[in-house]
Amino acid sequence: MKIIIVGATGTMGKYLVSAFEKEHEVVRVASNGGDIRSDITSAASIENLFRQTGAFDALISTAGPTYVGPWINLTDKTFRKGVEGKMMGQINLVLIGQHYINPKGSFTLISGALTYDPQINFANASAANGAVEAFVRAAAIELQMGIRINAVSPTVIENSPQYFPYFPGDIPVTMQQLEYGFRKSVFGANTGQVIRPY
Amino acid sequence: MKIIIVGATGTMGKYLVSAFEKEHEVVRVASNGGDIRSDITSAASIENLFRQTGAFDALISTAGPTYVGPWINLTDKTFRKGVEGKMMGQINLVLIGQHYINPKGSFTLISGALTYDPQINFANASAANGAVEAFVRAAAIELQMGIRINAVSPTVIENSPQYFPYFPGDIPVTMQQLEYGFRKSVFGANTGQVIRPY
Ligand SMILES: NC(=O)c1ccc[n+]([C@@H]2O[C@H](COP(=O)([O-])OP(=O)(O)OC[C@H]3O[C@@H](n4cnc5c(N)ncnc54)[C@H](OP(=O)(O)O)[C@@H]3O)[C@@H](O)[C@H]2O)c1
Ligand SMILES: NC(=O)c1ccc[n+]([C@@H]2O[C@H](COP(=O)([O-])OP(=O)(O)OC[C@H]3O[C@@H](n4cnc5c(N)ncnc54)[C@H](OP(=O)(O)O)[C@@H]3O)[C@@H](O)[C@H]2O)c1
Repeated sequence: MKIIIVGATGTMGKYLVSAFEKEHEVVRVASNGGDIRSDITSAASIENLFRQTGAFDALISTAGPTYVGPWINLTDKTFRKGVEGKMMGQINLVLIGQHYINPKGSFTLISGALTYDPQINFANASAANGAVEAFVRAAAIELQMGIRINAVSPTVIENSPQYFPYFPGDIPVTMQQLEYGFRKSVFGANTGQVIRPY
Repeated sequence: MKIIIVGATGTMGKYLVSAFEKEHEVVRVASNGGDIRSDITSAASIENLFRQTGAFDALISTAGPTYVGPWINLTDKTFRKGVEGKMMGQINLVLIGQHYINPKGSFTLISGALTYDPQINFANASAANGAVEAFVRAAAIELQMGIRINAVSPTVIENSPQYFPYFPGDIPVTMQQLEYGFRKSVFGANTGQVIRPY
């Protein structure tokens, strides 16, 4: 399988690259590194990405920038970080990528437990997650030619200890659990699902 | 109570105005009518709205424009209708309105069953709803001085028969059920809830 991983240089992305590259052709994408550079906040940059990759079998996204910080600093302007990044960035990967993906291919987007379990400072991520998850359910009934779409929604992950203080009492998801979440989406048959790998 | 109804000239809004104006001071808002004109796709216009209303006790929004149409026409551009309208329009009503609302006041936003129950042609509304609902849960743990926030999420409503063909098998929510959903949010004590009035 030819698998594109967007966010390949990040905490999740690096782990998934090394898990999948043993058996598959992995194309690593990030805005400042990887095999191909692409900024998902720009639809033109995404179009350019797929022109370079050509046809592919699966796209995994672990790229989802959001604004994290005090509620009082959350304004129309700061909110845009998650709207353009985690939300529209990932939605545009699908709206544009559907014209390049092979039949029976799959999209797997990143969400997170903040959709249902909000935390102080993370309202922008909650909203972006909610949009991504509902979009996944809606896209699943629209995509043609057996193309599937799911989201993976972990709590805080074990390789991100810097976030632990913001998620009191959340049992970290192991990197292996996270990998299994993506495996279920990419190699399974489900569509329109939000996979909680814990 | 002084209640601002944004979307007051629409199908839902008109009904809610007549239900609540008997016992409360209602300020009707829409982009092309009502007591005060305001376009919620513009943060400046929202700021201007609250400068005119001054302090208030409750804000109800039934204004939520989205793109409805064939999936194949859904692009970064058409998707913006719901992003700027139903999503950021309503989120900005809260982010800006929180500085004008009275202590113990409430915000009630409009969502819809499409969050979990997608329909062909309505992916943009699903995404906007998902964002609004997750935002409501996140804002509820951030808002100060007893200010509450909820969303009302009906299926298709009985006064919108033009939508019935797009929602096969959905039992229409009556206007009275819809009113009760908003009553529960405005006059009850809950916060961070998505109220399904059926
Ligand atoms: N870490 C956690 O505990 C956790 C838990 C639940 C959910 N999540 C979510 O999972 C996602 C990834 O988390 P992570 O910890 O792996 O993040 P990370 O370490 O910051 O990595 C993010 C990756 O995305 C890329 N990226 C960022 N902005 C981009 C853009 N505009 N265009 C293209 N690529 C971009 C980054 O590379 P460049 O900077 O070079 O672009 C990097 O490869 C986030 O959305 C986060 O909200 C994380
Ligand atoms: N109708 C249903 O069956 C149903 C079911 C579930 C959910 N919903 C959701 O409920 C919401 C309202 O539905 P509805 O049927 O009452 O809609 P509607 O009849 O079209 O009314 C919309 C109202 O919002 C106002 N509005 C639209 N864009 C605005 C903007 N940019 N700024 C300020 N006001 C704006 C309109 O007035 P102006 O045009 O003058 O601005 C009007 O007063 C929508 O978000 C819809 O998705 C509807």
